[in-house]
Amino acid sequence: MSCNKIITITRQYGSGGHDIGKALAKKLEIPFYDKELISIAAKESGVSPEVFEQADEKATNSLLYSLSVGLYNYGNGFSSMGDLPVNDRLYILQHKIIKELAEKENFVVVGRCADYVLKDNPNLVKIYIYADIDSRIKRAVDRQEIDPARAKQAVLKADKNRANYYSFYSGKKWGLADNYDLCINSTYLTTEQAVKMIVSYIDILNKK
Amino acid sequence: MSCNKIITITRQYGSGGHDIGKALAKKLEIPFYDKELISIAAKESGVSPEVFEQADEKATNSLLYSLSVGLYNYGNGFSSMGDLPVNDRLYILQHKIIKELAEKENFVVVGRCADYVLKDNPNLVKIYIYADIDSRIKRAVDRQEIDPARAKQAVLKADKNRANYYSFYSGKKWGLADNYDLCINSTYLTTEQAVKMIVSYIDILNKK
Repeated sequence: MSCNKIITITRQYGSGGHDIGKALAKKLEIPFYDKELISIAAKESGVSPEVFEQADEKATNSLLYSLSVGLYNYGNGFSSMGDLPVNDRLYILQHKIIKELAEKENFVVVGRCADYVLKDNPNLVKIYIYADIDSRIKRAVDRQEIDPARAKQAVLKADKNRANYYSFYSGKKWGLADNYDLCINSTYLTTEQAVKMIVSYIDILNKK
Repeated sequence: MSCNKIITITRQYGSGGHDIGKALAKKLEIPFYDKELISIAAKESGVSPEVFEQADEKATNSLLYSLSVGLYNYGNGFSSMGDLPVNDRLYILQHKIIKELAEKENFVVVGRCADYVLKDNPNLVKIYIYADIDSRIKRAVDRQEIDPARAKQAVLKADKNRANYYSFYSGKKWGLADNYDLCINSTYLTTEQAVKMIVSYIDILNKK
């Protein structure tokens, strides 16, 4: 099917949001960006992808200050970022890349506050995928082959990190339905069923 | 279509949640409860429906205290409620009525923290309907024939009242996606389109 929308997927760790986003992009025949943004940022900046991987979607305290005193201009690329922590450099680069991509194509993007970065784009559809904690722990166990206690720790830590990251860069509260167009609890849905629901929603919007 | 679920609709004022709930109940061929709960409560207690209407979905500070010190037993009916404020009497009665209804039938219920009241019911589907503030103001203007400034006041006041009511009785934060199975921003949807999305979701659950 055709799609004239950019879709942002915000997802709880272990909710299957990545898989849903990927399957959605395939269904809509548009590009998919998640970790792909790290490779692009690494290529543009010359920083190793492994360094960025470690820093991805983690907030620091320095960027907000730096931005607030006008030290940085998004358009200037990596060279102007001086001694900013790598997390912040990556955030700024991903922010710039997402904006540039949005000017030339429609796509599905997972995480990275993309809903906030693109908030003024009239073609934006903002989806939030979440799930009950037990099913998220189970998914973490299955995916990472770790025991349930460690998986629970990983889930809770990721919740905290993502909430901090989102609130820090967007100034909005993570997990509030109002931030999104559609919020789906994926606990009782397969990836395909969740995709089907999102596609029905986009289909309605496409017809307007 | 048949439906083996009880559906709670939590809605922002002006989001069209009432109409969506009503149309959903019709589609699923199950009863619909919103203000209807007031009539039942009035009938059971002998209190005038007008008195309850004024007190509906407003929180007070006394109930939590009364409950915490064990003064009230939900099973005892209205006569045991002594000097409790009318809001709290209505909450207790509606709570009791919703629980009784859930034992004998499936239905759609709007508001009244029904999602919290029925939280242990395995057949529960919890929906949250919200919308952008401008479309909620427009709906309030159209419905109540008031000017936009007064409509905005009404929307903001209702947001505050409902958030207080929900948080007060459920102990949970109003508007967090995690409290629900599906959250739909109704701004760009007709009532029928929103119903269609909810029905697709219920249809998936019904097949499990």
